[in-house]
Amino acid sequence: MKHNFGAGPCILPQEVFKQASQGVLNFNDTGLSILEISHRAPEFVAVMDEAISLVKELLNVPEGYSVIFLQGGASLQFTMVAMNLLAEGKKASYLDTGVWSKKAVAEAKLFGEVEVVASSKDKNYSYIPKEYQVAADSEYFHFTSNNTIFGTEFHSFPKVNAPLVCDMSSDIFSKEINVADFDLIYAGAQKNIGPAGATLVIVKDSILGKTGRAIPSMLDYQKQIEAESMYNTPPVFSVFVSMLNLRWLKSKGGVAEIGKENIAKAKALYTEIDRNPLFKGSTAVEDRSNMSVCFVMENPELEKPFLKYAEEKGCIGIKGHRSSGGFRASLYNALPITSVHVLVEAMQEFAEKNA
Amino acid sequence: MKHNFGAGPCILPQEVFKQASQGVLNFNDTGLSILEISHRAPEFVAVMDEAISLVKELLNVPEGYSVIFLQGGASLQFTMVAMNLLAEGKKASYLDTGVWSKKAVAEAKLFGEVEVVASSKDKNYSYIPKEYQVAADSEYFHFTSNNTIFGTEFHSFPKVNAPLVCDMSSDIFSKEINVADFDLIYAGAQKNIGPAGATLVIVKDSILGKTGRAIPSMLDYQKQIEAESMYNTPPVFSVFVSMLNLRWLKSKGGVAEIGKENIAKAKALYTEIDRNPLFKGSTAVEDRSNMSVCFVMENPELEKPFLKYAEEKGCIGIKGHRSSGGFRASLYNALPITSVHVLVEAMQEFAEKNA
Repeated sequence: MKHNFGAGPCILPQEVFKQASQGVLNFNDTGLSILEISHRAPEFVAVMDEAISLVKELLNVPEGYSVIFLQGGASLQFTMVAMNLLAEGKKASYLDTGVWSKKAVAEAKLFGEVEVVASSKDKNYSYIPKEYQVAADSEYFHFTSNNTIFGTEFHSFPKVNAPLVCDMSSDIFSKEINVADFDLIYAGAQKNIGPAGATLVIVKDSILGKTGRAIPSMLDYQKQIEAESMYNTPPVFSVFVSMLNLRWLKSKGGVAEIGKENIAKAKALYTEIDRNPLFKGSTAVEDRSNMSVCFVMENPELEKPFLKYAEEKGCIGIKGHRSSGGFRASLYNALPITSVHVLVEAMQEFAEKNA
Repeated sequence: MKHNFGAGPCILPQEVFKQASQGVLNFNDTGLSILEISHRAPEFVAVMDEAISLVKELLNVPEGYSVIFLQGGASLQFTMVAMNLLAEGKKASYLDTGVWSKKAVAEAKLFGEVEVVASSKDKNYSYIPKEYQVAADSEYFHFTSNNTIFGTEFHSFPKVNAPLVCDMSSDIFSKEINVADFDLIYAGAQKNIGPAGATLVIVKDSILGKTGRAIPSMLDYQKQIEAESMYNTPPVFSVFVSMLNLRWLKSKGGVAEIGKENIAKAKALYTEIDRNPLFKGSTAVEDRSNMSVCFVMENPELEKPFLKYAEEKGCIGIKGHRSSGGFRASLYNALPITSVHVLVEAMQEFAEKNA
């Protein structure tokens, strides 16, 4: 049995894989594959509608917000956010907490002035900056809620005097959030939403249409909202599996319940990291991510042997990103706590063997 | 049994559905779903490499061209083509043969001057204009090789004094083409390539990097080429199934062989349309599409009853687009000729009953 700690595309529930696999053969007893039905067929329109309804229900999205499924991942959102919200000659503020925020900054610069209000680059992004000022004339403030590569996560959200825009790719649906605190949330699907190929955007309608810029139709949030995520052929299968996965999340009790499990999983692993003399966490304790647990070994020479040992126990995908080294165990929603226990046991056994 | 004449997302081979379904449960005997493996895993890199190699092999792509898989469908290519090839203050030429070319024109206008050299709008796009001049200073000439909504197709490609850019979404891989005649070919996957969610681009490297425009990374062909279609997480499943489908095409003898079958399928249906007194073709005979067969009834009041009759025989997806009315039978690669025979029989039987 494999325990998939991969950073994404990541583990989804086994029952979702089964339903998805069945849908490829015979979708909803239509006698057709989900891959060969028209996106305008009532059967698929119902899938898209249900996916959007589930997002609204699970996150308690208030009135005045639109939910759309797009393509291109968070990386295309780096462009779309600035293109749709940052008028030429105006300013946007960004917080630099790692690779993904840096990329978001670089893309935004093509559209207006970008102010980086703070950065944790000085300590290899091992913490979340907390003291900074956002310019009063800033169009919006952008941050990355969870930093997969460095293992930090916001446990409370910034309070700033600017509309809040958040790349929530790697911790959306992992806990309760108050959508009303945000003006725009985006997320690549391939962590807690569904398979790669879809991108979720939740946007406050009233912030759109203000830049005066001519925006290409496919990159225009307003056009995508008007077209109900079907301006052109959507990523049918990715939306279908996202819908299945959000159904699963609802059946588990929603984000409040999964949030408790996620805390329990992270706690089990961090407890062992802190207890075990061979290992140590690589991020500021107060900013430790519950989704992306990054850690290293006191003796770096033991990292390769431990990686091998863990893999023999079925724990895969725990090698750290090349920017941070060491290990990264991603504990997304679908990863059972039993998998965390297997990893913890492997750490304990390895420590005994190498005492 | 259903005979899927849908316009797209469309029928793919049954064996591809089976392999895709299996890959969702257990990809390549990894014990993992194709949906949960990292796009950087060697197993998926091999899928992407094979998909690209198969495109090159099947279309005999010459040296000096790059093949990439992107997201966003042909509609995002309407923007990317102009963004990457049309410098501000320069001109591009477009041929207007229907809804898709019109949309391509509209998006290109955001980036430079657009000259529409000819249009068949005067006769509801029922033919392909053949007499036109392309301005000598045009950066490129854009056309749509097959018009799904109106049922026309280029049977020989334009000879103009400008780089040729083609939206080949609905007839790529349906017949032999000479890629060297083109500077850029793009196609949404969801006809003869694979499922929705992936977009294929074949581009001559030497035409890129000339506009002087700052292009967002995700929309920059050069960056996507350098990143080998993995600038960010690609649409893993759509690329996987595209690879399976291109393997199938290769096993069938490639585009030369499928091209013969496609001609036979189209001929069988057009022969009946021309023979049967109840039906008539709705496009100029010399421009009739082999992929998208559009036809109407002499007596429009019989269209609803025939649609019902055909559906009872298992023929689905033949209702024409609202812009053109009547019927549209899409005969993509994976549609067996036996399905065409069933439709032809239904037309014959219906004619007898309504003689």
